[in-house]
Amino acid sequence: MRRIARSAGIDRRALLAALASAPVVPQLFLPAIARAQGPSAPLASWNDGPAKRAIVEFVRATTDRASPNFVPPEERIATFDQDGTLWVEHPIYSQVVYCLDRVPAVVAQKPELRDAEPFKTVLSGNREAIAKLTMGDLEKILVATLTGMPVEEFDAEVKKWLAGAKHPRWNRAYTELVYQPMREVLQYLREGGYKTYIVTGGGQDFVRMYAEKVYGIPPEQVVGTAGGTKYGYDKNGKPFLTKEPRLLLNDDKAGKPEGIHLMIGRRPYAAFGNSDGDREMLEYTGAGAGARLNMLLLHDDAAREYAYGPAQGLPDSKVGRFTQALFDEAKAKGWTVISMKQDWKRIFGFE
Amino acid sequence: MRRIARSAGIDRRALLAALASAPVVPQLFLPAIARAQGPSAPLASWNDGPAKRAIVEFVRATTDRASPNFVPPEERIATFDQDGTLWVEHPIYSQVVYCLDRVPAVVAQKPELRDAEPFKTVLSGNREAIAKLTMGDLEKILVATLTGMPVEEFDAEVKKWLAGAKHPRWNRAYTELVYQPMREVLQYLREGGYKTYIVTGGGQDFVRMYAEKVYGIPPEQVVGTAGGTKYGYDKNGKPFLTKEPRLLLNDDKAGKPEGIHLMIGRRPYAAFGNSDGDREMLEYTGAGAGARLNMLLLHDDAAREYAYGPAQGLPDSKVGRFTQALFDEAKAKGWTVISMKQDWKRIFGFE
Repeated sequence: MRRIARSAGIDRRALLAALASAPVVPQLFLPAIARAQGPSAPLASWNDGPAKRAIVEFVRATTDRASPNFVPPEERIATFDQDGTLWVEHPIYSQVVYCLDRVPAVVAQKPELRDAEPFKTVLSGNREAIAKLTMGDLEKILVATLTGMPVEEFDAEVKKWLAGAKHPRWNRAYTELVYQPMREVLQYLREGGYKTYIVTGGGQDFVRMYAEKVYGIPPEQVVGTAGGTKYGYDKNGKPFLTKEPRLLLNDDKAGKPEGIHLMIGRRPYAAFGNSDGDREMLEYTGAGAGARLNMLLLHDDAAREYAYGPAQGLPDSKVGRFTQALFDEAKAKGWTVISMKQDWKRIFGFE
Repeated sequence: MRRIARSAGIDRRALLAALASAPVVPQLFLPAIARAQGPSAPLASWNDGPAKRAIVEFVRATTDRASPNFVPPEERIATFDQDGTLWVEHPIYSQVVYCLDRVPAVVAQKPELRDAEPFKTVLSGNREAIAKLTMGDLEKILVATLTGMPVEEFDAEVKKWLAGAKHPRWNRAYTELVYQPMREVLQYLREGGYKTYIVTGGGQDFVRMYAEKVYGIPPEQVVGTAGGTKYGYDKNGKPFLTKEPRLLLNDDKAGKPEGIHLMIGRRPYAAFGNSDGDREMLEYTGAGAGARLNMLLLHDDAAREYAYGPAQGLPDSKVGRFTQALFDEAKAKGWTVISMKQDWKRIFGFE
């Protein structure tokens, strides 16, 4: 920005150059500049249809000062589920893969776990047996791999894992398996002055490790399932926080509006989800006055990604279950169901 | 911003006019513009001295790209205790006054409390007896007056109370008893690209009701003692959240860095407090690499506000206790102690 201050006047080229190099792009300037540059192509990966139109119309209605549904900039909050809404969740949540991958290292530190279940089964590598682990087993694995260490140690482990782990179907990093059309919605909303939040059932600390790089969403805008930490000092008297197996927020189903109240303190104007875990977040968003945008992504594209429901006769699913009751509620309440097959020109940025 | 888009070029006057009327002021532009306008008078209510110099030097060191301690804008986080740091906390926290004031209304709804302690004592109006209530009594009053109602009902009650309640010494609204020099620090840090947070032992939902108006700090940047909420539906099927007597975060002492991790997920670069309840927040802030600003306000001005410690021989205090041990830790760690008497030209904006 120094170029601007130093120059006698301000010209448009200098402003654009400064904006391009600025680490934080002031949101207000972008729409004006986009308009000044001529028609851009927002939501380029979306086919024309009711879903795309709903997004465009919502942003117009809430950001045009002449609109009866104008929303002051500071109240513009949009919340996004992550798994299955912003990136691939099948066949298994990436964070669960992380936890399973961490078991050998945890057992190396605590050899007494080697012959104890469910760790023994995980170490066996027997996929069929692992697939049969119960929720109780999974919880033991989560506690052992996600808690008990300093925050910085956890952060470093997650970053290391993210750099190496690959999704079995595409043989690409999980962080590449982000839906390009949703990236464009995030960007489009931000250009409309919306603050975009992730509201995920996944671990808050886990998602924070990549959300800024992958989605442009900073740590303070990630709301997720969160455990407590404990403040203490190392042997040199330096303070640090240890991750504890004490659940503060189960950020799923009713926990999503509860988490939104806790962490944001404002009701969203827009909410995006893809499963029964997002129902309450959308209900809560829709219960506010004025224009609200509620959208659910239906995975109906086995060829390009996955197809699962059980809504609309799609195969039932363990991960990201979208029931017919949710589909019916969406129709009754005027929420928009996005058809991956119909509404999206492409799925991933690398395509 | 429309003026800019519509005009053929961009001139400085139009930019300044647009900025002045913009609801959200893009932070990056302000320092450049301030420089372009010539010397402004930041921190005008501060006397020249080590405290003011520490603030100015910190902002310079962390925002000048040529500085070895430059901090990227997205990492610029500053946290402020509220009671006794941003506004008056003596003779009693305003939120406690709120709770005591609410007791008659609560008893009217639940007559069985009329003859039960501690409600009976509060209703008696006997100040001496009220002053002797124990922490356990106070907790019962907090639970009865802060929980059990829908979030919106609580919000409305707090707003109503804030509009009418007056501090006994100045006979002014509590929201007027904000320290003008601290307002200027908030503004100065924001102009330097810092995101300013309140990190308070007070109730998160309570402080959120006025923080935006009084400090320019939006609800999502208020971290405080927080209880859970419960999602449910009214008789028309409309969802709402009820405040529950379930403590999620006790945002005091070690709870402050724990709350910062939960709600922000980044270590602050600057932290401001005034009592032993802020010690861990400052320790945690100071344990990060690079330039960090840690400041403690010492209330040593009985004439203009209050004088309490017991540090430095000041009278001991129940509210906002600043011990000699904390004072000594500040000196040992290079934190800056602000003397209200020496460092502040004026205390309040209305003076």
